[in-house]
Amino acid sequence: NIRNLAMEKVASTVMFPCRYQSSGCGTSLLHTEKLDHEETCEFRPYSCPCPGASCKWQGSLEQVMSHLMQVHKSITTLQGEDIVFLATDINLPGAVDWVMMQSCFGHHFMLVLEKQEKFDGHQQFFAIVQLIGTRKQAENFAYRLELNGHRRRLTWEATPRSIHEGVSSAILNSDCLVFDTSIAQLFADNGNLGINVTISMC
Amino acid sequence: NIRNLAMEKVASTVMFPCRYQSSGCGTSLLHTEKLDHEETCEFRPYSCPCPGASCKWQGSLEQVMSHLMQVHKSITTLQGEDIVFLATDINLPGAVDWVMMQSCFGHHFMLVLEKQEKFDGHQQFFAIVQLIGTRKQAENFAYRLELNGHRRRLTWEATPRSIHEGVSSAILNSDCLVFDTSIAQLFADNGNLGINVTISMC
Ligand SMILES: [Zn+2]
Ligand SMILES: [Zn+2]
Ligand SMILES: [Zn+2]
Ligand SMILES: [Zn+2]
Repeated sequence: NIRNLAMEKVASTVMFPCRYQSSGCGTSLLHTEKLDHEETCEFRPYSCPCPGASCKWQGSLEQVMSHLMQVHKSITTLQGEDIVFLATDINLPGAVDWVMMQSCFGHHFMLVLEKQEKFDGHQQFFAIVQLIGTRKQAENFAYRLELNGHRRRLTWEATPRSIHEGVSSAILNSDCLVFDTSIAQLFADNGNLGINVTISMC
Repeated sequence: NIRNLAMEKVASTVMFPCRYQSSGCGTSLLHTEKLDHEETCEFRPYSCPCPGASCKWQGSLEQVMSHLMQVHKSITTLQGEDIVFLATDINLPGAVDWVMMQSCFGHHFMLVLEKQEKFDGHQQFFAIVQLIGTRKQAENFAYRLELNGHRRRLTWEATPRSIHEGVSSAILNSDCLVFDTSIAQLFADNGNLGINVTISMC
C-alpha cells in the first residue's frame, strides 16, 4: 500500500508531453490532465467535417477547405451572412444528410441537416452550423436557424461548433435545432424545406 | 341500384339543422357538411381547458373563467403581455402538466407545458398557449415562447389555439414548442425551467 501511494505520488507530479508534440504542441501535462488537453489540443489533426463517418481524411485546418473542394465537389456554397439552406426531398426514407457551405466574415461555415431515428419509429431532424476554424474562432460568432411557415416560426440561436469538435455530440445531446417529421411537414413546401440561416459576429 | 342513387340524391340536397340548434345555432346544412360545421360551431359547449381529461365540466364560453376560479383554484395568474412561465421540478418522472394563466389585452390565456412519452423511452416537453375565447378571437393574437440559456435560445411563435379546439391535437401534431429532456437540461436551472411568454396583437 505504501508502495502504491508512492507511485501515485510520482505519477501525480510527473509531466508528460502532449501526444501531438511532433505536430508542434509544446505543452507538458500531468497524466490526469493529458486526455482532456489532447481532446482540445489545437495541434490535433482535423477530421473531414462532412457528417457521417464515410470520409476518413485527416489533416491540418489549413487543408480542410481544399479537401472539401477536391473530394466533396457536390457541396454548394452560398455567399453572405443571411442565406436560405434549401433541403430537398425531406421525405426520403432512412437516415439522410443535407450539407451546404456558407461564406461570410472571411470564414467558411458548414450547414448540416441530419435526419435520423434516435428512437424507434420516431424520425427527427437535427440542424446545426459548424465553423471551418478553431473553437476559439467559433466563439466569436453566433448563428440563427429559422423555419418560417403560415403563422408559425421556429428559431434556434447558438454558437457555431468548431469542426475540431464536430457536430455529432451536439446532435446526440439535442444541442441544435431539433424537430420531428410533423413539424417538418408544417414548414415544408412540396417536400422541400427552407431553413433561414443567419451568421453574426458577437 | 337506381333506388340507392335516388336516395343519395335526396340526401345530398336535404338540409339538416345543426345539432346545437337548441343552444341557439340557426344553421342548416347538407349532411356532408354537418359534422365539420358542428366541430367548429360556436354554439357547441366549451369543455374545461385544463390539460388531461380529468375534469368533465362543459359550459358556455362566459362560464369558463368562473369554472377555473372555483374548481381549479391552484392555477396562478400573471398580468402582462410579457411574463415568465416557471415550471418547477421538470425532472419529475412520468407524464406531468404545468399550467398557468396570463391576462393581457382584456383576455385570459392559458399556458400549458406538458411532459409525455409519445415514443417509448423518449420523454418530450410540449408548450402551447390557448385563449379563453373563440377561434375567431384567437386569430387576432400571436404568442412567442422562448427558452434562454448560455449562448443558446429556442423560440416558437404561433397563433394561440382557442380553448374551443383545445391543445391536444396540436400537441399530437407537434404544432407547438417541442423539446426533449436533453434540451430541457440545457435551459433549466436546478430542475426549474423558465419559459418567456409574450403575447401580442396582430
Ligand atoms: Zn497539445
Ligand atoms: Zn472528406
Ligand atoms: Zn351550429
Ligand atoms: Zn375543469
